[in-house]
Amino acid sequence: MDAALVQFHERGYNGCGVKDITDAAGVPKGSFYNHFESKEALALETLRLYGLSRRAELLADASRDPLERIRDHFAFLSGELAARGFTGGCMFGNFANEMGDQSPALRHAVETRLGAWSDTVAGLLEEAKAARRLGRSIDTERLGRYLINAWEGATLRARVTKTAEPISDFFAVAIDPLLNGS
Amino acid sequence: MDAALVQFHERGYNGCGVKDITDAAGVPKGSFYNHFESKEALALETLRLYGLSRRAELLADASRDPLERIRDHFAFLSGELAARGFTGGCMFGNFANEMGDQSPALRHAVETRLGAWSDTVAGLLEEAKAARRLGRSIDTERLGRYLINAWEGATLRARVTKTAEPISDFFAVAIDPLLNGS
Repeated sequence: MDAALVQFHERGYNGCGVKDITDAAGVPKGSFYNHFESKEALALETLRLYGLSRRAELLADASRDPLERIRDHFAFLSGELAARGFTGGCMFGNFANEMGDQSPALRHAVETRLGAWSDTVAGLLEEAKAARRLGRSIDTERLGRYLINAWEGATLRARVTKTAEPISDFFAVAIDPLLNGS
Repeated sequence: MDAALVQFHERGYNGCGVKDITDAAGVPKGSFYNHFESKEALALETLRLYGLSRRAELLADASRDPLERIRDHFAFLSGELAARGFTGGCMFGNFANEMGDQSPALRHAVETRLGAWSDTVAGLLEEAKAARRLGRSIDTERLGRYLINAWEGATLRARVTKTAEPISDFFAVAIDPLLNGS
């Protein structure tokens, strides 16, 4: 599973085969099908593990200001991207891109995970709204979805610039104004 | 070239081989290398053609309001996505995702094209700012880059939802407020 996560993240779904993954794991290719029905089944499991590494607990800490939690969550993800030299992107976005048209199962898995992530952010925005830190007219569900998509776009752009600029742009335009109440 | 554009757009860079492209074009595979040095060289040329299909002329029509031009440009791209049933995504984003870490030449080509696109949008935002339709404190270069990235993220999300919702979210959060002067 660890080898699959690294291989899929670095090379994409189509960019690596089962043999690349079993080679990276140091196990015979033949043993793969004792554990997984297909490469697609492995990718689904990999997405689940990747989701667990997104530090959703930063978002869940009810003792802290909801807008600061959103900011710190994206700051954690930004630090991770920078540490990887802006390679690899986000696995949700990668699989959306490569497999959204090809694999109904992977499409559905990514849709569900991005939906849950958006809902979590929307819930925090709703908390902030209830505390009058956000305007009453803000559609928090829409803004939650939008912020996740804008994050995915920033991640994608950083993959070609290999700089933090797209991430800084995301914070300056989408996140900081929320915290400044503007 | 037409066959390559369709194949790369529908299946991604790693999802199709030279033979898929020559088969789709109805020419022998052997003839490919008389015209292109490599699949990568073909992909670079395909990106150029794709750029020409983005209707940049909608952005250049100086007789029209700059913010309306930005809105109409994204509305054109939205219509195209809907007509494709939200498959295929944006080829710039696709190549960024699949090849941003693998091919320096493709990475550079996408970086350049997304940069030029961002600059064009930034120029229109600057026009709107000069006409006092946008606040004086807005960093138009940053906002230009950001809007392109947010668009790419919306496109990516639509590829998994197979609905216009991410596009509607983009307009409602990022574009309509610009035109409403808020």
